[in-house]
Amino acid sequence: MCRWLAYRGGALHPSLLVLDPAHSLVRQSLNSPLGAETVNGDGFGLGWYPIGGDAVGTPALFHSIEPAWHDENLREISRAIHSRLFFAHVRAAAGPPIQQTNCHPFRHGHWLFMHNGRIGGWRHVRRELMLRVDPEFFPLIRGTTDSEVLFHLALTFGLAQDPVAAMRRAVEFIEETGRAHGVAEPFQGTIAVSDGERIWAFRHSSLGTSRTLYVSADLTALREQYPDAERLHAFDPTARVIVSEPLNDLPGAFVEMPESTVGILGPDGYRDEPFLRAAA
Amino acid sequence: MCRWLAYRGGALHPSLLVLDPAHSLVRQSLNSPLGAETVNGDGFGLGWYPIGGDAVGTPALFHSIEPAWHDENLREISRAIHSRLFFAHVRAAAGPPIQQTNCHPFRHGHWLFMHNGRIGGWRHVRRELMLRVDPEFFPLIRGTTDSEVLFHLALTFGLAQDPVAAMRRAVEFIEETGRAHGVAEPFQGTIAVSDGERIWAFRHSSLGTSRTLYVSADLTALREQYPDAERLHAFDPTARVIVSEPLNDLPGAFVEMPESTVGILGPDGYRDEPFLRAAA
Amino acid sequence: MCRWLAYRGGALHPSLLVLDPAHSLVRQSLNSPLGAETVNGDGFGLGWYPIGGDAVGTPALFHSIEPAWHDENLREISRAIHSRLFFAHVRAAAGPPIQQTNCHPFRHGHWLFMHNGRIGGWRHVRRELMLRVDPEFFPLIRGTTDSEVLFHLALTFGLAQDPVAAMRRAVEFIEETGRAHGVAEPFQGTIAVSDGERIWAFRHSSLGTSRTLYVSADLTALREQYPDAERLHAFDPTARVIVSEPLNDLPGAFVEMPESTVGILGPDGYRDEPFLRAAA
Amino acid sequence: MCRWLAYRGGALHPSLLVLDPAHSLVRQSLNSPLGAETVNGDGFGLGWYPIGGDAVGTPALFHSIEPAWHDENLREISRAIHSRLFFAHVRAAAGPPIQQTNCHPFRHGHWLFMHNGRIGGWRHVRRELMLRVDPEFFPLIRGTTDSEVLFHLALTFGLAQDPVAAMRRAVEFIEETGRAHGVAEPFQGTIAVSDGERIWAFRHSSLGTSRTLYVSADLTALREQYPDAERLHAFDPTARVIVSEPLNDLPGAFVEMPESTVGILGPDGYRDEPFLRAAA
Repeated sequence: MCRWLAYRGGALHPSLLVLDPAHSLVRQSLNSPLGAETVNGDGFGLGWYPIGGDAVGTPALFHSIEPAWHDENLREISRAIHSRLFFAHVRAAAGPPIQQTNCHPFRHGHWLFMHNGRIGGWRHVRRELMLRVDPEFFPLIRGTTDSEVLFHLALTFGLAQDPVAAMRRAVEFIEETGRAHGVAEPFQGTIAVSDGERIWAFRHSSLGTSRTLYVSADLTALREQYPDAERLHAFDPTARVIVSEPLNDLPGAFVEMPESTVGILGPDGYRDEPFLRAAA
Repeated sequence: MCRWLAYRGGALHPSLLVLDPAHSLVRQSLNSPLGAETVNGDGFGLGWYPIGGDAVGTPALFHSIEPAWHDENLREISRAIHSRLFFAHVRAAAGPPIQQTNCHPFRHGHWLFMHNGRIGGWRHVRRELMLRVDPEFFPLIRGTTDSEVLFHLALTFGLAQDPVAAMRRAVEFIEETGRAHGVAEPFQGTIAVSDGERIWAFRHSSLGTSRTLYVSADLTALREQYPDAERLHAFDPTARVIVSEPLNDLPGAFVEMPESTVGILGPDGYRDEPFLRAAA
Repeated sequence: MCRWLAYRGGALHPSLLVLDPAHSLVRQSLNSPLGAETVNGDGFGLGWYPIGGDAVGTPALFHSIEPAWHDENLREISRAIHSRLFFAHVRAAAGPPIQQTNCHPFRHGHWLFMHNGRIGGWRHVRRELMLRVDPEFFPLIRGTTDSEVLFHLALTFGLAQDPVAAMRRAVEFIEETGRAHGVAEPFQGTIAVSDGERIWAFRHSSLGTSRTLYVSADLTALREQYPDAERLHAFDPTARVIVSEPLNDLPGAFVEMPESTVGILGPDGYRDEPFLRAAA
Repeated sequence: MCRWLAYRGGALHPSLLVLDPAHSLVRQSLNSPLGAETVNGDGFGLGWYPIGGDAVGTPALFHSIEPAWHDENLREISRAIHSRLFFAHVRAAAGPPIQQTNCHPFRHGHWLFMHNGRIGGWRHVRRELMLRVDPEFFPLIRGTTDSEVLFHLALTFGLAQDPVAAMRRAVEFIEETGRAHGVAEPFQGTIAVSDGERIWAFRHSSLGTSRTLYVSADLTALREQYPDAERLHAFDPTARVIVSEPLNDLPGAFVEMPESTVGILGPDGYRDEPFLRAAA
């Protein structure tokens, strides 16, 4: 439904990934060859951890209902700010209204969250899923997307304590609820979550047909492989990006993440592990 | 929090009431002397029953998050369309986001609804009130205002069968819920509802300090009183408007509706009756 | 750059052409197979002559910078209004900002105008073209598109007296100015103009590679050819539409207009004649 | 017509001046006691010189057509960024459309410009003023305000070489042109200009009735005068702000700038000098 990008590494201007690459996220907003939809023009969002002050503070958000491709504020802001960890998202709305409160990423305290995909049979399961949200978190739901309810279910299930376990329980609960309502594919999607220090990226769908998700290769190895690729020198060696589609055509630069996997990107580099198994 | 206007009578351009009068609703958006806030710049809405075709059809909606005062689309549309019954609303947001799904009027089938005021302690009672909404209506809630939940509670309590009884039960339920949460003033507001044939206008608050509400005087009598008031000849004799503030300074042209009253405007003219008593 | 549609015939809801057909203008906004761009998501506009009152009055405009495909106001308004002559336009911006004043159609008195294409070398010829606009019309230019300047040049050259001659002089002046600046293709586009009674539709480009333009076939003949096509019965026999791309796949339903031609649609039906020859 | 604020000093979050003070610019957008209009809800803008990299780089812009008072992006961005020199502006439109290209500040290279006031008889002098703009700068005019033309006149008259002389010539040219058209008050306004190093703030009107303009007092002196004012400790000693209205009620904290004066704020502190005399 959407396209997203999550970056972690040395401080840089988000424009370096969001605007400049051959298949930058902004270009994917107008034309995303691997997307369920090729146009993602129903708003966008940028969430970033500002540099300076406290170790990990509250991330800042910029949301807009305009298409990303001609948005001048996005160009200005993504070129002016610096960040060591940011999320960017372009939306293709399946149904819920086009409004800023439905734009990703979503935020809770120092947590960021974004999603590409959908909760199947949303109209039928929405009430039941919302009721399961902890009453403490319920009033914080500001929009009407399935994604934001998913985030608040994960918070309910302990996202702040154990992101992987909480997300697993949230997705399992959604799958159980959907199946109880006879929904063929209760969950579909790729998800990114961050606490400002690490990024957890999930790829899963109930039928094993998840949206694509890629992680960039280790930069040191990539530079050895492509000594002439000047663009690679704009990044520090720890820079990694997880993204719905490769940002360029360099063979080996982006590696597909397997189905039902969670990738974890932190101070100790990147690794992935099984997340959930699709129902056979 | 807001200002609104409901018209019933011979077909006319809404601009005649929304744009042209000395204290038109659009002027009230920038400066409403009797309002809780004097600026109502957080979006607006127009809902009208188009002329032609079936007796009473689905009303049309135009919603915008721009301030009404400079909005060119509002000027164009309210001058181009004709209607025998329409609602107009300018918003001063107390908290919920500025987005089209939070703009009044709201619609359900051939019903229109709008509200000025608030549900007290919204953050604390929101979940409980939403749970009381009939599961059939729950997925139809598209925004995040207290007003839209009030509308869906009224639908749950039988608005389509008996608007006055259903609105009474909805307000009573809100007041009970608020009091159980220790909210001092659980309900405050003026409400307009229509089925395309009649308008029901409610004025009530838990503490007896409701927002102002006025109904225009009988036009035949008014014309006799002001034979030189040319503007009055733009309207047919059955034209009546219910509005948050008088649209002009003509003494006697607008009569204040008493506290805890419902005014009913239909083919048989206007009458009002007690709605609910404020808690002593 | 854009896609547009102009209708003349019995009164109908614009939605019948703008929303409902297999390749409606709104669907073309997301995917227009014959367009120079396949996405036309940079705003849209609707201009219509309201029914009632004076013979031919001022047309009404509705402009928005949102993509047309999910716009709820467009759905509401195009289903609620009736008109015997209307223009609709979806924009793919080549450069000038996304703002309502850059949305087509443009209006002057009871004239409507819209354009798909571009003035070549705009940055270099803009000042010279604007200076040629009659000082009476100059202050009426509200946006920053080449299209709006083209319209005001046509007004300067007597559009209100002789639309074909005025448009010819405007295009010739643009071509001369462009060539003087060394612009390879000074003009490219399809244009629709109306006075509320007739529609003039122009197709021309300096290099003979104009954007596509189609006119719907005579409805009486079409019904005989397709006796089972129920949709055709929604229109009265005089209904004709001129459009950038066919609205359906019915063979013969839409006929391509030749290069450098002006089509004229009025009370006496449709005819076309040569407009300008492309430079060899 | 508008309200604005220009800051120079140690790096800080613009929110400290734009959002937080008792009479912050955002509060002035809803209620500006000293303004020609008390509501400035027709969009806003923020222009800032980002920290890092080159000594003085290109300033970044954030423009929006929403009222500032509830805008979430403005809150997010003004709290997330740091800057040593920034402009902020809230608009009350006198006529030209509400669109991002009409939002201040305007930018040219590393120059920022903003304006509160108006060119008298704009409709009559617009063409003549635009023709005087250097053809090199003409295509860079993106909106339709008198303010942007004033900026490009100043650029034409050598703003980059001598800001005071260029602004003087621009205002004189506007006054001459207006008088030739019989305009009673050809110019009215306060203006801020910056090259990233210094701020020049102008206050002038043809009739000597300029909009208000204030400069904050020297912070070291102010702290001695108010040892208990904790808020003053959030700023470094070189911090100065020039603003349409005082940001707080502290006597002596803001000093009115005299009529027809230019204030210059740079590494060597603040000083002012005569700019132009009003016509007697």
